[in-house]
Amino acid sequence: MGMRISELAQRSGVSVPTIKYYLRVGLLPSGTTTAHNQATYGETHLRRLRLIRALLDIGGLTVLATRDVLAAIDDSTVSGLDLLAIVDSATAAARCGIVDESVRDTALTDVTALIAGYGWRMRPGVRAIDRLAEICAAVRLLEVKELYGVLDAYAGAAAQVAECDLAVTRALAERVDVAPQQQRVILMEAVVATVVLGGAMLATLHTMAREDALSRLFAEEPQGLR
Amino acid sequence: MGMRISELAQRSGVSVPTIKYYLRVGLLPSGTTTAHNQATYGETHLRRLRLIRALLDIGGLTVLATRDVLAAIDDSTVSGLDLLAIVDSATAAARCGIVDESVRDTALTDVTALIAGYGWRMRPGVRAIDRLAEICAAVRLLEVKELYGVLDAYAGAAAQVAECDLAVTRALAERVDVAPQQQRVILMEAVVATVVLGGAMLATLHTMAREDALSRLFAEEPQGLR
Repeated sequence: MGMRISELAQRSGVSVPTIKYYLRVGLLPSGTTTAHNQATYGETHLRRLRLIRALLDIGGLTVLATRDVLAAIDDSTVSGLDLLAIVDSATAAARCGIVDESVRDTALTDVTALIAGYGWRMRPGVRAIDRLAEICAAVRLLEVKELYGVLDAYAGAAAQVAECDLAVTRALAERVDVAPQQQRVILMEAVVATVVLGGAMLATLHTMAREDALSRLFAEEPQGLR
Repeated sequence: MGMRISELAQRSGVSVPTIKYYLRVGLLPSGTTTAHNQATYGETHLRRLRLIRALLDIGGLTVLATRDVLAAIDDSTVSGLDLLAIVDSATAAARCGIVDESVRDTALTDVTALIAGYGWRMRPGVRAIDRLAEICAAVRLLEVKELYGVLDAYAGAAAQVAECDLAVTRALAERVDVAPQQQRVILMEAVVATVVLGGAMLATLHTMAREDALSRLFAEEPQGLR
């Protein structure tokens, strides 16, 4: 029932040398050693390998950050909210460059009001709040107030998408074909997949829809921006 | 009427050494040299400096990529669509790791159908199409089909947000207080600001709304993921 490494490579689309590298750096757990001193791998390895590729290729995580996320999935003392925090800090390096404190404070007040308006419950000190305040501060500094004006419409669209994320994660968690002892780790993997893939999906669809919308503007411009 | 570099630093929140660095690497155009051999700077420099910070801090662009984007803004032969392509390739390094060609082809068919369904006009070969196909292939490989099922709801939300982007960019382009000869460069700056800041805004709001939605799931889980 176990797979040889070559079969694992074939089914995952990841080359044998790459799988060996993942084993060496501890991204992938070791296989089971057989009587003939050969390692075999199971469905868990295949699933984990696919998640590793999604984190590296789609999420753009570093190998080190990927290892942190996988360790959190496997650690049964890590809660779902802890996991979100770990994925959060793994998906992006913190940046902080807006110096003007007063603009930033105004923006933070607006962001706090927005969160309250939507009734979003956030962990205190979650990075996204500061990040949004920083973006809003940049919007103010760049004097594109018009973008500030559509913040609420953006938040509404994000809330809609988040309801889909919830439905997806719940559906994944309620799969009946999963052994009870695997349920927690499968849910944790589902959370990571939804966060990383869902995030990339929305960002890419936004790029596409915006290209279409702006093309219309360029087409009507007298100055020939088409 | 010109500002000394110290005033420029104060008004932009960027330190004098950093401004000097931007001047040296060609991110910021030189000031006007006065009789006393001192350079002075205008509103254009201030505006450009704020855009540079937004590109570096919010967009996460490298200095080199920022220089490409600014050069495109200033080059009057660059069209709006050219600019979108340059921002597109500047905001992310191309990644391509999904090996399974057949899964990728299926995903590409689905993405093409989605684009046709929304009537989105895309430049041929635009990176976002391949990127979305790659994400969808990863979704299939990870066997989180549920996420595939909400692709359309995601696209609807993205389309809504893109209409806001169009309204914002149009409003910026129609500002009456701008000298005619500056109109093109201001519109180009508005496009870049909308793409980079709007993209970051939506991604961050998505993170926040998702955290709230998933908290609800964790709270109801019997396995204590809260």
